[in-house]
Amino acid sequence: MTAEKIDWQQCFASRASRMNASEIRELLKLLDQPDIISFAGGIPDPAQFPTQAIRDAYAAILSDPAKAAQALQYSVSEGYLPLRGWIRRHMEALGVPCTEANIMITAGSQQALDFIGKLFLSAGDTALVTAPTYLGALQAFNAYEPRYDTLGLEGGNRTPESYREAAAANGGRVGLAYLVADFANPSGETVSLPARQDLLTLAEALDTIVVEDAAYQALRYDGEAVPPLLALDIARSGGIEASRTLYCGTFSKTLAPALRVGWVCGASAAIAKLVLAKQAADLHCATINQMVMHQAAEAVYESQVASNRKVYKERRDAMLAALARHMPENVSWTRPEGGMFIWVTLPAGIDGADLLAQAIKDCRIAFVPGGAFYGEGRQNNKLRLSFSLSTPAQIEEGMARLGALLRRLG
Amino acid sequence: MTAEKIDWQQCFASRASRMNASEIRELLKLLDQPDIISFAGGIPDPAQFPTQAIRDAYAAILSDPAKAAQALQYSVSEGYLPLRGWIRRHMEALGVPCTEANIMITAGSQQALDFIGKLFLSAGDTALVTAPTYLGALQAFNAYEPRYDTLGLEGGNRTPESYREAAAANGGRVGLAYLVADFANPSGETVSLPARQDLLTLAEALDTIVVEDAAYQALRYDGEAVPPLLALDIARSGGIEASRTLYCGTFSKTLAPALRVGWVCGASAAIAKLVLAKQAADLHCATINQMVMHQAAEAVYESQVASNRKVYKERRDAMLAALARHMPENVSWTRPEGGMFIWVTLPAGIDGADLLAQAIKDCRIAFVPGGAFYGEGRQNNKLRLSFSLSTPAQIEEGMARLGALLRRLG
Repeated sequence: MTAEKIDWQQCFASRASRMNASEIRELLKLLDQPDIISFAGGIPDPAQFPTQAIRDAYAAILSDPAKAAQALQYSVSEGYLPLRGWIRRHMEALGVPCTEANIMITAGSQQALDFIGKLFLSAGDTALVTAPTYLGALQAFNAYEPRYDTLGLEGGNRTPESYREAAAANGGRVGLAYLVADFANPSGETVSLPARQDLLTLAEALDTIVVEDAAYQALRYDGEAVPPLLALDIARSGGIEASRTLYCGTFSKTLAPALRVGWVCGASAAIAKLVLAKQAADLHCATINQMVMHQAAEAVYESQVASNRKVYKERRDAMLAALARHMPENVSWTRPEGGMFIWVTLPAGIDGADLLAQAIKDCRIAFVPGGAFYGEGRQNNKLRLSFSLSTPAQIEEGMARLGALLRRLG
Repeated sequence: MTAEKIDWQQCFASRASRMNASEIRELLKLLDQPDIISFAGGIPDPAQFPTQAIRDAYAAILSDPAKAAQALQYSVSEGYLPLRGWIRRHMEALGVPCTEANIMITAGSQQALDFIGKLFLSAGDTALVTAPTYLGALQAFNAYEPRYDTLGLEGGNRTPESYREAAAANGGRVGLAYLVADFANPSGETVSLPARQDLLTLAEALDTIVVEDAAYQALRYDGEAVPPLLALDIARSGGIEASRTLYCGTFSKTLAPALRVGWVCGASAAIAKLVLAKQAADLHCATINQMVMHQAAEAVYESQVASNRKVYKERRDAMLAALARHMPENVSWTRPEGGMFIWVTLPAGIDGADLLAQAIKDCRIAFVPGGAFYGEGRQNNKLRLSFSLSTPAQIEEGMARLGALLRRLG
């Protein structure tokens, strides 16, 4: 359970959480009990980690005196060049022609969000976010005191003027539009191609940047891949140097999160500013971890992604089947084509946070209540279920218990 | 030379640098030439790294399935508890009684400076810094748009009122006082006990925090240790929870910089706020690196510090002797009791940046010009010489060349 605490920390720290410190302590104590089936942690299954490849990489680097001296020493803020080369080829395969000057290494994609907030949001500016959106993005941006407005993606009927006027009424401008375009955290949904084009049109009209959080993009289980917003932007604008999209990638969901290696890809002028922010914030990412991640990516990235897809697809399928089998008729949920999350809508009267307390006490299951995932326009009758950490049998049992509880509540 | 580039990046990125991008590229190209003797990099000698202990720690952790699963997974923002336990004992040995709740792990001490700026400086607030001061602190704080005022430490005659009024005239308050108290970067100087007490009195009068950057504290070569400001603060205020000092520590100068593991120690209420900043900024430090650093610190911290002291003392002695031998009479320098730096004062008419260009071209030596190390009140007739990376023979040769150049310039 310990590893999931980072998720709970995020949730409880959010402005939307109504729990006090002692309630949180009580809850965490309950969550530490081994008989709890948890669908809370939005984190990869450690059984999936390429431990051998990572161990081999550390050993190889630290056994070569010249490489060891480099791996343990200070290094440049933009990141380890061979790793940026690997990422360049990876981005090109996604339809993003670029050079290493378009790529900076970050401590997970979370750090890219912090730096982007620092550069593009002043107090009172507006950040456009989906409702719901990734909690960690709200936390990163909150430090820069923005106002939030809701990005309506599929069939949204807000005009650029309405966004601009609302931002101006708050004394600022629209600083950025943020989204998880593929298998979003928490909704599991993927933004369609037309909606991506509409968003780029909106961003052009507002002259604002688009922040594409691609944390789950590699984890597609079925359906057809939609091109990254950065690729579409480049096709429209004529090249990455004319683009307005910053693509935030990470190895956290495909290889391992705890080396803290992610990246941001975009126009080199923006990357140069982000490099200065990185230098001021923590000088550079751990040199040794960048070298290890490069070696591990070269060796096992493709096979890792294939293995993750196989395992998580089975769990997603199990959860969708179990939901269909056990949920009462007044409950609905999303059907993600990838990622780790299913987003559940309860009847309007049921509060996800109350339900969590009851679910832990009565049925020994856990999930994340949905209320924390909103910049504005919060809805409390939502749950985020993660299927990444549980076996199909645990999923079946957990959904049966949740269904029975919801039926008892009527 | 590559590892030194982080130092050059900092220097060139500073607001005080007057070089443009192409001049910087030219200079870096020159610096990459193998015949340059460099006193520029303020970084540890990689020959000192405990490579074997670090390699063993990675291997041991990644060979144990349960530890590997933990090491590669997300973890909590405050940091790995056993490492915080080691640091607690380390701080207690320095005269700082505390608990793990008083300690957060950061990505080097640089990250602590960024978070402290984020929490304690609003635009227009005043940061008190020594003149000169650590360039990376200025870069971390600059993001929060402070005004700088000069902290006069030994025999400074500024009253609290004069600081407060100057801060108010700028529309803010004094947000923090920052210093490297031991063997400072760049001056090499150590703040005396009476001056530390005076600073705490000033901070009380201003009701501001003191940021004690202890990056070099363990590297004392002679003289008697002065207690950390945090220890003095605790003795005055009655306990760490009543203290106003945030102590920023790091393993970068004693074990290895590139794992990016440092810490901040202070009142638990401040640490709790810093944990939220950490969570929003990058979730947590690399779990595996924290576990490795814990194991390496347990195994070799004492022997590493002893070895570092021996090697760097010899180099400091060599540099002081070579300076005495080769410098013209109108040049003066500091005599540090530890650390990595000697701060040289040139005759008033000589600009350190101009001298660097000439020194590289004519004598194949490099150093960092002093002008970048000032928040305000910049002096350009200064050089920072680092002795950490050069052998006594290189030091003798380099100082002879520098002395000859200065004599030619008259």
